[in-house]
Amino acid sequence: MSGKKTCLPLLKAPPSLEDIRRVHQEIRPYIHHTPVLHSSGIDQLTGAEIYFKCENFQKIGAFKIRGAMSAALALDKKKLKKGLTTHSSGNHAQGVALAAKLLGTDAHIVMPENSVASKMKATRKLGAKIITCEPTSQAREQTVIQLMTKKGLTYIHPYNDFNVLAGQGTIALEFLEQQDNMDCILAPVSGGGLLSGVSIVVKGWNKTQGKNISVFGTEPKRVDDCFRAFYSGKLKINKRTDTICDGLRANIGFLTFPIILRNTNGIFTAKEKTIIQAMRMIWEKLKIIVEPSSAVPLASVLENKKIFKGKKIGIIISGGNVDLNHLPF
Amino acid sequence: MSGKKTCLPLLKAPPSLEDIRRVHQEIRPYIHHTPVLHSSGIDQLTGAEIYFKCENFQKIGAFKIRGAMSAALALDKKKLKKGLTTHSSGNHAQGVALAAKLLGTDAHIVMPENSVASKMKATRKLGAKIITCEPTSQAREQTVIQLMTKKGLTYIHPYNDFNVLAGQGTIALEFLEQQDNMDCILAPVSGGGLLSGVSIVVKGWNKTQGKNISVFGTEPKRVDDCFRAFYSGKLKINKRTDTICDGLRANIGFLTFPIILRNTNGIFTAKEKTIIQAMRMIWEKLKIIVEPSSAVPLASVLENKKIFKGKKIGIIISGGNVDLNHLPF
Repeated sequence: MSGKKTCLPLLKAPPSLEDIRRVHQEIRPYIHHTPVLHSSGIDQLTGAEIYFKCENFQKIGAFKIRGAMSAALALDKKKLKKGLTTHSSGNHAQGVALAAKLLGTDAHIVMPENSVASKMKATRKLGAKIITCEPTSQAREQTVIQLMTKKGLTYIHPYNDFNVLAGQGTIALEFLEQQDNMDCILAPVSGGGLLSGVSIVVKGWNKTQGKNISVFGTEPKRVDDCFRAFYSGKLKINKRTDTICDGLRANIGFLTFPIILRNTNGIFTAKEKTIIQAMRMIWEKLKIIVEPSSAVPLASVLENKKIFKGKKIGIIISGGNVDLNHLPF
Repeated sequence: MSGKKTCLPLLKAPPSLEDIRRVHQEIRPYIHHTPVLHSSGIDQLTGAEIYFKCENFQKIGAFKIRGAMSAALALDKKKLKKGLTTHSSGNHAQGVALAAKLLGTDAHIVMPENSVASKMKATRKLGAKIITCEPTSQAREQTVIQLMTKKGLTYIHPYNDFNVLAGQGTIALEFLEQQDNMDCILAPVSGGGLLSGVSIVVKGWNKTQGKNISVFGTEPKRVDDCFRAFYSGKLKINKRTDTICDGLRANIGFLTFPIILRNTNGIFTAKEKTIIQAMRMIWEKLKIIVEPSSAVPLASVLENKKIFKGKKIGIIISGGNVDLNHLPF
């Protein structure tokens, strides 16, 4: 833990490129600098030139540690000492658990009682306390509120938080430093923390570096709230959640949506079948393990080959946490 | 193709470290420089500190392109132009096919008619001609000899060839340049091309750099000919070949064995069950796809935790070509 009262400012408005640079500087000692991979085999199959920023190699196997750490470092020592909380049954749970561990404080993670045992175990292994609740959003929120009031814990939202999305945006900063000869960057979108952070960085980079890189969100067709919201200008709700992409079932957030609307060039959707095909292509050609959510950008390219033909594309691989006993192929 | 008559000398004796350096220089433009990965999760589970040299990210998904290219570059232009041949149903087939393609010549690969369709397809996709034969070693050899005499093709042996093993040894050269603070290096052993090449480099490196890095071969217990050969000083034959490690079923070669005997510190074997466990551990913790053969070194560490406790270990991941429809877990 730093001796300073707080490492980072508590952001009350959308971060700028400079804000995100500062976040990157502070979280850097706690995270991995992940590699960018390329496969001539995938280029041949898509007719494009694709670079993959591999956050599956990030600590906890997903990018979520960036946002959690960014938010935790914006707390003063006293608040941080009391501990962190969130509700999540996925990668964000492990992100908050690890951030707490690395900063020497406690994490209390609220999980629905029907969560996958392996995910609970992984979060517990990081030193977090797991509090189970009924699998309803009401029960989940009530449990978190109880923890906040009784124990004075700070709640870290998975995406609707300027400090969190600034943390996720640091991926794009690294990516562009590694490879900025790109026509566009594609990221999966769920609550929008990743996409909003990335879009701020890319638009800022374009301005300062004289580039013209587009940003696109990509999501499963079955949970296309962001697609519908983007093209109508109004927040929408997913009508179903039965996508294979367990990381992309949330609705876009009210803080992330305006940022996405302002900075993003468009949203693509992809069918479940294409997502599975893309996931398998990444496994076979890049020889890396990625979770279904990470395959949605490549699936979008596969479904829109004409649009992306000959383009230099950056794809953000969000994570690699899959259950090897339940593969979709 | 180089304008010189031959890029590399045709080796008639075991190569020295300097020979392998020269090979590396010549094959470098044709191969990937693969990364070294590390996982604190695997360190915790093994009690050691392990670095993985990831040849699953190599072209064709395995290290075999190094040896094939090394051998091809030792041919004069006239011989090279006539084409290359080998018999293999695995990674060496693709290595020779790609070497031929990159050097603008033909490859004729002899494969047993019961080979896996996907492997035949992958080799054919690299531009090679596939010649099928009955699945006996006699039929295989006769077919190759016919091709050599009728078409003047040059045969590239998968391991019993000084130029080939020199090519495989370049992996250790890169590995040590990336990370030479290691107590030992573990590699899988089958015909011995990889292990013999690696052992020459490490022993040479120790001498010139004042290091003391050991080299160990590792093989499945079911095909432990190298283990028995090493500790008896005499070539042995595998009594069975029913290991999950499809890349490790060959017997050690008569050219590679004396090199291994001289330069290697020992051979470990691992049970099938531990190999599968190690393979899964690598997939889950490192988030990379590796084939069963590549998991044998880690399996050997898992079966000998006391010996390797606290040691800095380098492991060579030989390849990542697996059939996702037939996973062992």
